[in-house]
This record gives sequence, structure tokens and C-alpha cells, in this order.
Amino acid sequence: MKIIVDAFGGDNAPLEIIKGSIDAHNEFGYDILLTGDENKIKACAAENNLDISAMEIAHTEDVISMHDSPLSIMREHKDSSLGLGMQLLAEGKGDGFVTAGSTGAYVLAAHKMIGEIPGVKKAGTAAVMPNDEGRFLMMDCGANLTCTPEILNQFAVMGIAYMKNVFGVENPRVALANIGVEESKGTQVLRDTYKLMQEQDYNFVGNIEVRDIPFGGADVVICEGFTGNVILKMYEGVAGALLKNIKGIFTASLKTKIAYLLISSNMKGFKKKMDYKAYGGAPLMGIAKPVAKAHGSSDAKAFKYAIKQIADYADSGAIDVIAKAVKE
Amino acid sequence: MKIIVDAFGGDNAPLEIIKGSIDAHNEFGYDILLTGDENKIKACAAENNLDISAMEIAHTEDVISMHDSPLSIMREHKDSSLGLGMQLLAEGKGDGFVTAGSTGAYVLAAHKMIGEIPGVKKAGTAAVMPNDEGRFLMMDCGANLTCTPEILNQFAVMGIAYMKNVFGVENPRVALANIGVEESKGTQVLRDTYKLMQEQDYNFVGNIEVRDIPFGGADVVICEGFTGNVILKMYEGVAGALLKNIKGIFTASLKTKIAYLLISSNMKGFKKKMDYKAYGGAPLMGIAKPVAKAHGSSDAKAFKYAIKQIADYADSGAIDVIAKAVKE
Repeated sequence: MKIIVDAFGGDNAPLEIIKGSIDAHNEFGYDILLTGDENKIKACAAENNLDISAMEIAHTEDVISMHDSPLSIMREHKDSSLGLGMQLLAEGKGDGFVTAGSTGAYVLAAHKMIGEIPGVKKAGTAAVMPNDEGRFLMMDCGANLTCTPEILNQFAVMGIAYMKNVFGVENPRVALANIGVEESKGTQVLRDTYKLMQEQDYNFVGNIEVRDIPFGGADVVICEGFTGNVILKMYEGVAGALLKNIKGIFTASLKTKIAYLLISSNMKGFKKKMDYKAYGGAPLMGIAKPVAKAHGSSDAKAFKYAIKQIADYADSGAIDVIAKAVKE
Repeated sequence: MKIIVDAFGGDNAPLEIIKGSIDAHNEFGYDILLTGDENKIKACAAENNLDISAMEIAHTEDVISMHDSPLSIMREHKDSSLGLGMQLLAEGKGDGFVTAGSTGAYVLAAHKMIGEIPGVKKAGTAAVMPNDEGRFLMMDCGANLTCTPEILNQFAVMGIAYMKNVFGVENPRVALANIGVEESKGTQVLRDTYKLMQEQDYNFVGNIEVRDIPFGGADVVICEGFTGNVILKMYEGVAGALLKNIKGIFTASLKTKIAYLLISSNMKGFKKKMDYKAYGGAPLMGIAKPVAKAHGSSDAKAFKYAIKQIADYADSGAIDVIAKAVKE
């Protein structure tokens, strides 16, 4: 299993990416092919006493930044660390590709350099997130701000393949993210999608009210990309704001610091359960090869798990299952 | 100041509504006119030793339930506790109206029995919510699932009037809820609205990424109703799931119970800060008189504050300000 990793995408490049790649190699045994400026990668590794002797490097000096137009990935930045990584995947030089770079450029490059599985209408971003039951997959999380019922139905088929093949979920429950459980709720697109999903063979459990998403009830949550991105970011924002306040409480005085010591082991378990970093990247499902985007602010741990996630996806055979399912 | 209160709307009717009304009368001095079955109200008060001698009651035996079509409010359920309350407000028998009943019926009744302020394109649900800075207003929260830029711009004008007149915020910051801060982000409606808002005289601060909403940065957050409802419910859901887990930690063992005792005063301050009940109901802004919807699961405290909120809105003169602003 060889994963290609863009060493120059995101806010913490290249150090955290190199660290995460080394950890993924050591812990899970994957071969890693880093794309980017070889001198800079080596200098960064030397400075931080990191052993990168097990890493392959595909050299390129160009980088596509957040300020560049996504379209430039097919023109002046085709040889950027992101563009080169995608090309190498297209050429079969690896089994999957991970970047924390520009989302727009990454989606476009995946689409143009690799392309969709035949029969797939639109590729969509799938995010695996923690909930009270364990974890669930949400799709689309932002690649397609608006969707048709047919596209949303295909997302369900892809999400099912992922949860079955990657996580071994027997008969994944599919739900439509909505503002109420009744069939009549939501926009016209959601009402039409409800009807279409009811006619399918898979385990459609109806609408899930967004309020209930953190508690569980569905393995695959389907929504248009704008809605999915709002849900994803509210997850981060509300959890972040609450944890910031709670941290403030525990550091307020000696008394509250002692309180923290008393519950620290319980808090660790809770933090582990809610740790979205353990799910790393968001695969772009529907693309004919495994590609994933890691959060721009990813640290070494998030990269390690993003690499593991795309390797698991590559290893699972989910893409073949999707190819067969959309043909039918 | 007299507030009309639907005594038979929501999950906890009539007990919690009666309690909340008594508290609002005693604490803030408002007159209260309850609508609903007089015998049941009196029996409930007697059973629970509640003194309702200061309450007026407008008797009706009919109730519109969550299973009735919202349209029935204008036909067979015109004399329900909800319908009667709205009629009494229309006739000038009170200064504001609060219900925790069917949202659809309430919106329709407000529209048909009272009507919009002349010049207002659409009435919208405004919710005041806590954030790290204090509180902010979000609109629309569900009355209009999809909106045009012109409607969203009017919501901004209404939200500004509310924050200025009710809370005394000097120059309210208006932001558009979006999945990124850049002008190019989001759906076509949001991109067009951004352009329109930039041309206005008010204090438009651009897009607010939904992730940042809980931290602050805007006094008035504008969005289409579907998005607003998703944000509102994710607030509730994520906060609820986290607090449930944290509660589980503090009740796990004797050690963690002791920890709770050490931080309980700090936690109370935090809970007070984040208490959405203190903001009670959601006014339907753009309607020519003050009407508000309380959450279906509201308890006495939430009703008390919903009554206070609509009284503050009635008292603030915001409706006159809106009427003047939309005419210009």
C-alpha cells in the first residue's frame, strides 16, 4: 500500500505532514511518496531530527496557494505539489492521495486528472465524524453546494459502500439531514429526495433532524453540500466554543485545577471518543481512485489518520462496489 | 403592558405556561391574558396551588394540535387557543402574543389575521441566541426556507431595528452566515446578497463562517430559513450531546462527583451564560404586531422569558422603526 502525500498543502506544511507520514509508515506500515521541494523537505527533517529515509520524494518546487485560482491547477500550477501528487496517482504510482491544500484546486484536479467512476453524476465529499453511537458518514460536505435528488441518491449508494466496506457496518442506515422528521419537511429538493429514497432497496430510515445527528440514529447522513458544510462547521464551532469555556473553568483557580485532576482520566476517554482527528481526511467519493482532503489546520496526528483513512478506503474495494452499483 | 399567552400550545401545556405567566406577572409586572379552556386552567392551577387571580382568561375549548394541518387554523380551528389569541391581538386586546403551538399554524395566523408591515416582503423568524460575546440575533430561522437577496436584505433591516431598540446595540454588525468569509463563497443567492448588502448604509461586516458564530463577531446574522434552522438545531444538538457526556463524567464516581462540587459555582456561571431559555421565544418579525413562538418543549422559565421578550419588543418601538425603514 503506497499513499502519495502532498507535503506542501495546508497551514502546517511541511513539518506536520512529514511527521504524520513517518508515523503512518511506522504504525501502519504504508509506503509514503511525498510530493514537494526535496531540499526543503530534507532541511525540515534534518532541523527536527526526523528520519525520512523510508520516504520516497517526488520533487517539485511549485506550490499552489490559497490565493491562487483553483483553475490554475490545470495551467500554471499543474506541477505544484498538489498537481503532481494527483498526476502520480492517475499514473498508478500510488494507491491513494492526500492533500491539505486548496479544496477547489483539489476537487478540480481530481475531476480532470482522474475523473469520475463511469455512471457517477457528481463526486462528493464524505466526512466520517464521531457521534454518541460511535461514528457516521456525512455526504456531501461541500463539493456540490446544491444537488438534485438523483445526485443525493447516488451519494447514499456511495456512503453505504464506504460504511460497509471500510467499517463493516452490516446494513447501513441512510438518513436525510432535515429540519424535521416528517416527509413534508424541508426544501423541494429534500421532499423529492425523500420520495426517491423510499423507493430504493437500501435501508432508508427517513429524515434525521439535524439536532439529533450528534446523538446517532444513522450510519450515512445525506445532504446537499452547503448544508453538509454548515453542519460540519457547526460541529466544530459549537464544540470548540463549549470546550474553550470548559477549559476556562478548569484553569480558573487552584480549586478547579484540582477538580480537573479528579476527572482527567474520564475527560481523556471523552475527548478520544469525540476526536474528529481520528477520522482524518474527507474522501472525495465518486472519483475513480482514492483521494482525500485533510483539514487545512491538520497536525501530524490528523495527517497520520488521513493517510490511514485513504489507505483503508483503497484497501476496502469500495470503489469497485460503487462502480458496480451505479452501473445497475 | 398586556401579553396574550396561548395556554394550550406546546408539550407542557397548560401547567408550565400558567407558571411562567404568573412569574412574568410577578417579576416584570405585565398583565397576562391566557387563552384556552377556563375550567382546565382553573383546575390545573388549583391542583398545583397556583394563584391565578391576577390572570385574565379568554375562554375557548378548541385546541389546534401538531397533527392538524396548519391551514385548519383559518377554518375549523379559528377559535383554538392559538387562533383566539391571535384574533385578540389583532383586535388590540393586548400588546403582544406568545404561543408554543404549531409553528405552521402560528405563522399562517399571524400572516392572515394581523398581516405584514406595509412594504415588508416576508416576515421572518428571529432568534436571539447566546455567544461568547453575549448574544446575537439570527434571522430567518425557518419561516422561509429559501429567500431572495431582497428578502434577506430586509431581514437585516429588521434585525438591526431589534438589536438597536431592544438591546441598545449602537451600530449593529450585520453578517451573512456562509461556509467561508470570501465574497465568492456559498450559493448564488448568498453571493448576490453579499453584493446587495455591500451597497447598504448599515454596518455590513461581510460573511461570517458558521464555525465562528458561537464565538461572536456579528450582532445580526442573516441566512435563509433552512440554513438558520440547521444552525439553530446544531447549536442545540451539539451542545446537548456534549453536556450529556460531561454530565456523565461528573456522575461517574464519587471522585468525579467531588470534582463537580469544586467547580459547581463556575459551571453555574457558564450555564447561565449559555442559557438559551433566557432568550425565550422567537419573534416573527415583519408582522405588524408583536408575535412570538416559544419552543414546544418550553418550561415555566422559558415561557417567562418568552413573555418578557415579546413585551420588550412591543415596548421598544422596533416595529415603527421597521415600518419607517422599509418605506424608505
